[in-house]
Amino acid sequence: MTDVRALAQAARIASRELACLDTSRKNEFLIDLAREISSREGEILAANAEDVGAARAAGLDEAKLARLALTPKSLAQLSDGVRQIAALPDPVGAVVKDYEVPSGLRVKRIRSPLGVICMIYEARPGVTIDAFALCFKAGNACLLKGGKEAARSNALLASLARGVLARHKLPEAATTSITGLDREAMRDLLALDEFIDLVIPRGGHELIRFVAQNSRIPTIQHYQGVCHVFVEASADLDLAVRICVNAKTSAPATCNAAECVLVDTRVASAFVPRLVRALGDAGVEVRGDEEVILLSGGGPHVRAATPDDFGREFLSLTLAMRVVDGLDEAIAHIHRYSSGHTEAILTRDQAVADAFCTRVQSSCVLVNASTRFNDGYQLGLGAEIGISTSRLHAFGPMGLEELTIQRFVVRGEGQTR
Amino acid sequence: MTDVRALAQAARIASRELACLDTSRKNEFLIDLAREISSREGEILAANAEDVGAARAAGLDEAKLARLALTPKSLAQLSDGVRQIAALPDPVGAVVKDYEVPSGLRVKRIRSPLGVICMIYEARPGVTIDAFALCFKAGNACLLKGGKEAARSNALLASLARGVLARHKLPEAATTSITGLDREAMRDLLALDEFIDLVIPRGGHELIRFVAQNSRIPTIQHYQGVCHVFVEASADLDLAVRICVNAKTSAPATCNAAECVLVDTRVASAFVPRLVRALGDAGVEVRGDEEVILLSGGGPHVRAATPDDFGREFLSLTLAMRVVDGLDEAIAHIHRYSSGHTEAILTRDQAVADAFCTRVQSSCVLVNASTRFNDGYQLGLGAEIGISTSRLHAFGPMGLEELTIQRFVVRGEGQTR
Repeated sequence: MTDVRALAQAARIASRELACLDTSRKNEFLIDLAREISSREGEILAANAEDVGAARAAGLDEAKLARLALTPKSLAQLSDGVRQIAALPDPVGAVVKDYEVPSGLRVKRIRSPLGVICMIYEARPGVTIDAFALCFKAGNACLLKGGKEAARSNALLASLARGVLARHKLPEAATTSITGLDREAMRDLLALDEFIDLVIPRGGHELIRFVAQNSRIPTIQHYQGVCHVFVEASADLDLAVRICVNAKTSAPATCNAAECVLVDTRVASAFVPRLVRALGDAGVEVRGDEEVILLSGGGPHVRAATPDDFGREFLSLTLAMRVVDGLDEAIAHIHRYSSGHTEAILTRDQAVADAFCTRVQSSCVLVNASTRFNDGYQLGLGAEIGISTSRLHAFGPMGLEELTIQRFVVRGEGQTR
Repeated sequence: MTDVRALAQAARIASRELACLDTSRKNEFLIDLAREISSREGEILAANAEDVGAARAAGLDEAKLARLALTPKSLAQLSDGVRQIAALPDPVGAVVKDYEVPSGLRVKRIRSPLGVICMIYEARPGVTIDAFALCFKAGNACLLKGGKEAARSNALLASLARGVLARHKLPEAATTSITGLDREAMRDLLALDEFIDLVIPRGGHELIRFVAQNSRIPTIQHYQGVCHVFVEASADLDLAVRICVNAKTSAPATCNAAECVLVDTRVASAFVPRLVRALGDAGVEVRGDEEVILLSGGGPHVRAATPDDFGREFLSLTLAMRVVDGLDEAIAHIHRYSSGHTEAILTRDQAVADAFCTRVQSSCVLVNASTRFNDGYQLGLGAEIGISTSRLHAFGPMGLEELTIQRFVVRGEGQTR
């Protein structure tokens, strides 16, 4: 049986050394890690092919198989991603504030690693490298509990990373891949608050609930996006059609895809038929309220929405649509149904846009842009470990800075109280 | 029975209005709240006297009775504290970052309220006002679950606050005092993650463990301080005596009081006898390792430390002391025994001070100053809701900024992906 306690304790010890590493040593390691991934492509793909074969034989569905499979292209991206992380600024040691207080003490708030981070994720084996690379650059050790379907791929990628760590005389316990835990052992892992500072669950509803209910360690959830687009009365309707179609169709299975469009009643008769037609052309099924059905004139791509269709994360080419009576009703709908992930307003009225941005407190609120931009790369973070839906520590995309905490470092000349 | 679900839901609804309040309205309310506390002093003291009488009859110990009791002086301080919070800058709406990304999107990171905060605390009734005032200024609604000993005081203070809220046409559910929950009802409260964003437990070991083990909502623990002072070989020994005595004796029951002094072996023979004498004069009992016993020559205030005395939060005029072989051994001791709250080094060697500040990752690390300065007022935060020992979101004193989160507000001109 895996001794998770011993693994977590080793990670804690490693984290103390990682917290003090020079930026240049971290970057040299990351560049070498990227090189190693490229040079061992054949071996990685072979291990992954075994995982995929076994998962297919076990009847895993096609969507999950697609997430599980590595390709020469996805490996090259993985390797590039690690190089990009090497090129990003090091958040550790940054002096965020620096001031003197009346007692004469000089106070600095310094960005410092969180410590030990445990990622719990499902099929994607690439996470074994990219989550580690991000945690490492931010000075953290990580425990990576991946899905059992990816066991061979994860084991190989983790051992490859540990080999490079050893070559750089860095603690191998900087990354630990954990597999083969039953629910009981998972509970044991989630109780190790003396060694682990943060748990990040990424995956389906069931996984996230299990972690939230059983973790004694703080968690940041990367949970569902029930994202709304509100087409306000003053919107540019050409722009609105483009954005609504893009927000739904450019990557329907992602958490920042739109799941519901709200249309201001003052433009509904002009806009709804156009949007429904454009969505139909793009293969989207619309689940509309009565007014949408009426205005669109129906058709094969239009169905009456059930109450369940609002607040639902379709993750597919299906979109809920409702006509609302202006800003207040749009916001009331969002307050009731949104998951707080991403909301967009399309409008030419600056005051309305401002009100929307203040009153809608989602992690990302956009004006005249697609919800798909709520993403670490698109918002300039350089990379992301995921998009947090927890209103604590990090809300929205989590990049390197979000993998750190601020400490107080204080210098005096003998001050007492 | 208290319907905690309904109370939490009402807090969630109120939080949406609080998130959008103008600074001036918030400050006018707080100033009026401070006035109300002063003008109703007699009534508050009478309710509190009933609590104190009942608690004394029930056999509550003197330390807890002291925390429970309000006085004209402590009420005046409470009222002043609320006025000070009114005078602090409003963290909500502050633009922390503002930049353009290659797609042409303009990205702002804007400080925003957390939402609904639940404080769970023990006897101190003042928290009912000061935690609310801090949460309110940062745009949050709060649920306040105080100790049953303070039930009358808390109920009166909360109803007073709600009266002032109503007068200002603000949502009364901005603050809710909850009492009379058994363990089962507490578990129900701690499962309401759809309405509550953060739980802050403040109190004894048992309370904090119960919350950590049962909460499905993120928690920030305000837990124990096992704080160390390391007297390094180059330290100014006069300064070191003053600081060690101050760190232990100026408020021994607080979490930032020193619990253990580590003395570099190179100055041990010169320093230990002086320090032990000074501590004895201040009424402190020293629990020393063999070398401390030997060097100090014993005496009525000196006892041999048991293994349990290291890593222990005495919260009294008792101090552990150990001789260590330089910086590495001091840091190894701290890594093993510290609670990560506060550590100080006394040294004249800049390089050693820098190494200590980097390698010791506690929430506050001080050079040549007393551990007692790890405090929101002393470190310039203006006020604090407590000192976090969680390495997430806020680590160290939590002021107004730490009661907020950063959201992304993004403006475009029709961008799609």
